[in-house]
Amino acid sequence: MNDTSRRRRQRTGSVAVQRRWRKLRYAFAPIEPMSPNEIELVHRSAMSVLEEIGMRIQDGQARSILRDAGFRVDEPAEHVFFDAERVMELVAKAPSIATVRGLDPAKRVVMGKGHFALTAVGGPPFVSDLENGRRYGTFEDQTNFLKLTAQSDLLQIMGGTCVEASDLPAETRYLDYYLACCSLSDKPWKPLTIGHHRARDAIEMAKLWYGETEDQLAADPVFFLNTNTNTPLVLDRDIAQGVIEYARLGQPITVTPFALAGAMAPASVAGALVLQTAETLACCALVQSVRPGAPYIYGAFICNADMRTGSPAFGTPEYTFGAQASGQMARFYGLPWRSSNVNASNAPDAQAAYESMMSLWGAMTGQASVFNHGAGWLEGGLVGSYEKFILDLEMLGMMVACQTPPAITEAEIGMESIREVGPGGHFFGTGHTMERYKTAFYAPLVSDWSNFENWQDRGSLNATQRAAKVCKDMLAAYEPPPLDPAKIEALEDFVARRKREIVAARDL
Amino acid sequence: MNDTSRRRRQRTGSVAVQRRWRKLRYAFAPIEPMSPNEIELVHRSAMSVLEEIGMRIQDGQARSILRDAGFRVDEPAEHVFFDAERVMELVAKAPSIATVRGLDPAKRVVMGKGHFALTAVGGPPFVSDLENGRRYGTFEDQTNFLKLTAQSDLLQIMGGTCVEASDLPAETRYLDYYLACCSLSDKPWKPLTIGHHRARDAIEMAKLWYGETEDQLAADPVFFLNTNTNTPLVLDRDIAQGVIEYARLGQPITVTPFALAGAMAPASVAGALVLQTAETLACCALVQSVRPGAPYIYGAFICNADMRTGSPAFGTPEYTFGAQASGQMARFYGLPWRSSNVNASNAPDAQAAYESMMSLWGAMTGQASVFNHGAGWLEGGLVGSYEKFILDLEMLGMMVACQTPPAITEAEIGMESIREVGPGGHFFGTGHTMERYKTAFYAPLVSDWSNFENWQDRGSLNATQRAAKVCKDMLAAYEPPPLDPAKIEALEDFVARRKREIVAARDL
Repeated sequence: MNDTSRRRRQRTGSVAVQRRWRKLRYAFAPIEPMSPNEIELVHRSAMSVLEEIGMRIQDGQARSILRDAGFRVDEPAEHVFFDAERVMELVAKAPSIATVRGLDPAKRVVMGKGHFALTAVGGPPFVSDLENGRRYGTFEDQTNFLKLTAQSDLLQIMGGTCVEASDLPAETRYLDYYLACCSLSDKPWKPLTIGHHRARDAIEMAKLWYGETEDQLAADPVFFLNTNTNTPLVLDRDIAQGVIEYARLGQPITVTPFALAGAMAPASVAGALVLQTAETLACCALVQSVRPGAPYIYGAFICNADMRTGSPAFGTPEYTFGAQASGQMARFYGLPWRSSNVNASNAPDAQAAYESMMSLWGAMTGQASVFNHGAGWLEGGLVGSYEKFILDLEMLGMMVACQTPPAITEAEIGMESIREVGPGGHFFGTGHTMERYKTAFYAPLVSDWSNFENWQDRGSLNATQRAAKVCKDMLAAYEPPPLDPAKIEALEDFVARRKREIVAARDL
Repeated sequence: MNDTSRRRRQRTGSVAVQRRWRKLRYAFAPIEPMSPNEIELVHRSAMSVLEEIGMRIQDGQARSILRDAGFRVDEPAEHVFFDAERVMELVAKAPSIATVRGLDPAKRVVMGKGHFALTAVGGPPFVSDLENGRRYGTFEDQTNFLKLTAQSDLLQIMGGTCVEASDLPAETRYLDYYLACCSLSDKPWKPLTIGHHRARDAIEMAKLWYGETEDQLAADPVFFLNTNTNTPLVLDRDIAQGVIEYARLGQPITVTPFALAGAMAPASVAGALVLQTAETLACCALVQSVRPGAPYIYGAFICNADMRTGSPAFGTPEYTFGAQASGQMARFYGLPWRSSNVNASNAPDAQAAYESMMSLWGAMTGQASVFNHGAGWLEGGLVGSYEKFILDLEMLGMMVACQTPPAITEAEIGMESIREVGPGGHFFGTGHTMERYKTAFYAPLVSDWSNFENWQDRGSLNATQRAAKVCKDMLAAYEPPPLDPAKIEALEDFVARRKREIVAARDL
């Protein structure tokens, strides 16, 4: 690492420092557990799956696009067989990095080639906090999670719905979510990928929010999209529609197979990796068939079932290896790739922390380009946890700090202070210490390093209880960004109109 | 990784699997954050510290040995100046691996050159568990920790005292500890390094336990010794005596500076690394002066003070970097090196878990040769925690599993099962799954992956509460190894005699 990047080193941790925006980059080489021969075997096997078994693609338009791109389609069976050579031709058209931007063009988020982005949890139906327990998520909860996301510039992309707003009508709540993203932050946001209309409305709202044409949005993308196959080997109709719509506009998209080894994938990491590779490359081929050169992010989510209960496990050694191996496959194809910060704990406890750490270290050492579910995921993704969100911000802060190693220079070594202190002294008051003690080390958000007596005097709060307090403080301190009121009004009008149209269409 | 080692892959986790002894090895290249120029700068600076500032060596015999080895000694000031070239000549005599063995010669523990060993916590005055809270440790606690250590073959070396037996007389309790090590397990054990007599008695007891002469113990070492300098730049008299005594017998020893950046070392990781390197190499020079070629392990323990309170922090990003950088320095000198699994939390909670993970990943990616305090450390080392011990066994199990990556072979991929299941099916009942579901994945000790309802029905226990239960079960299941009763009797007689002698000498 060169001196310039050392000088630019920015410390993370503490609420204030979480707000400091910076480009996130890896400082070291990745850990690469598979040999070149093993990578080749996974590749060849994935190609065999695509050619010989193929995928069920449940959307007619998607099948038609793939047929036009040269793939064999069994229309009555909704089945597509993917010629390996043609898949690889298409995959080669995808760029090795993807970018998105919010309203501030200086804060461009780069994914791939050593750059990474972190995002908050997406999708849980339930929400929990220590005070109120576990319950269905509401729009207020969703808004709270978005406010927390807005306040940490480690999280550079808003949303992924955070938690479902189950108190709002199912068919229109995506509009409330989009409007919240546009109102609460100036960061780029993740719209939904389910169905043509959810994509079209996101694009219309982006045109209003950015004040740009579709061509401008396409030329310099704004959305990061994340969606899933139905592993094994099925692409759902609504998801295919969303993928096609965003691909038309060249927005970065990742389609992630849920390669749950022992359940939806073979009971081996190797088998899950093959299936994952086959499915995400098929979706890459679809995206490239729609718009050659559109950014596509290899979707990785290998985990394994607990073979006693069938429940998915996350943050296991297999998960860590799966992340590192997925990184190798993505680099083999020249694609950015997506990983996650996940765990299977039912409480925001020690298990949640160590499983998250196993996920994060897997993704970091595998050099993921984007971390989905970076903050707030609990209980295998069924719950968005307020306390876990804060604990995750701490863990993300530490992981980011690990990628900005301290300077090793004569000035930092401080030989004069070592000489001055000599044998048996201490460094508390030296000039060298006084110059740097405020910023020398990571400043934590939740971690308490005080001695037992002081900790006890303050109520013996564990890390989860302290996280609850930090969370309340952050929500109380939230302030909206300066946004053009006319734009927000236009967005509100758009949302109101679309809601009327959707309700009217339903009532026909 | 070759197929043979893949086939030998042994799964960790669960009480049964914790008992499966295996050689611990790294599977990947280390993470090396410093450039060759930075390593050189640290080295040159450490040499300057040794030459120009030197160390206070508080033991006359040690100074005399160092004088005979060619170093300049200021006797009235108890000060030794270390010529850099001579230090490097001596360091070059130390081997790049160290081994220890217990009663079973097949279970040889190797440290260095890609091999590593894990040990339990050493030294805390306090002990804690959820039921009884925090209190001074007793001999019963120490025995319990040793029984837990005996039961996990991830921990291949007994002791380090675990917790202090404060209910026994301070001057003779080391004898009770040695006897407990000899009675509770057949693994090698860590005697104390404080004072000549504690070393001599350990050696006498080893002669009885192994049934060997000193020459035999020296030819094939049995003890792993860990001790400390008084940073900055002081070597305590009693510690020097212990070091010399064990060095005479060629037993592997690590002397670890407590390089607390901002307190006992400069307020920078770079400065702490220089001071640590200087001190541990000075002790290596002492060991090599006593017995050229004796195994010596570079001692690393860089951490930083919380600059608001002065308390030490552990498992921070600086700690992780410090571990990786220490690994680079040790490899630069061709020495094995020691790291730790540490945290500064006051409770066995999420903070304890994520800080431990930061320590463990630093040590693992830096490829430490031996992990001190691998299980049970809490509250910056003031407390041995029963629950943390168990949580650590889980984390160690996962870390070890990460170093034994799953096989990527055609058999593991299971193309036939992917074909058989096809789009939209599941893999629960396939032959491929049935063949491997019992052993395919890491089996946890504490982690609970069941769904929320089942977890709630069982009492909504968090990971720490479940660890308490696992701990009780393990202690209840403890069985002593088959040991020769005559040997144990001889050891008991020895301990009784030595206690009488020590008390008589005190009463003179």
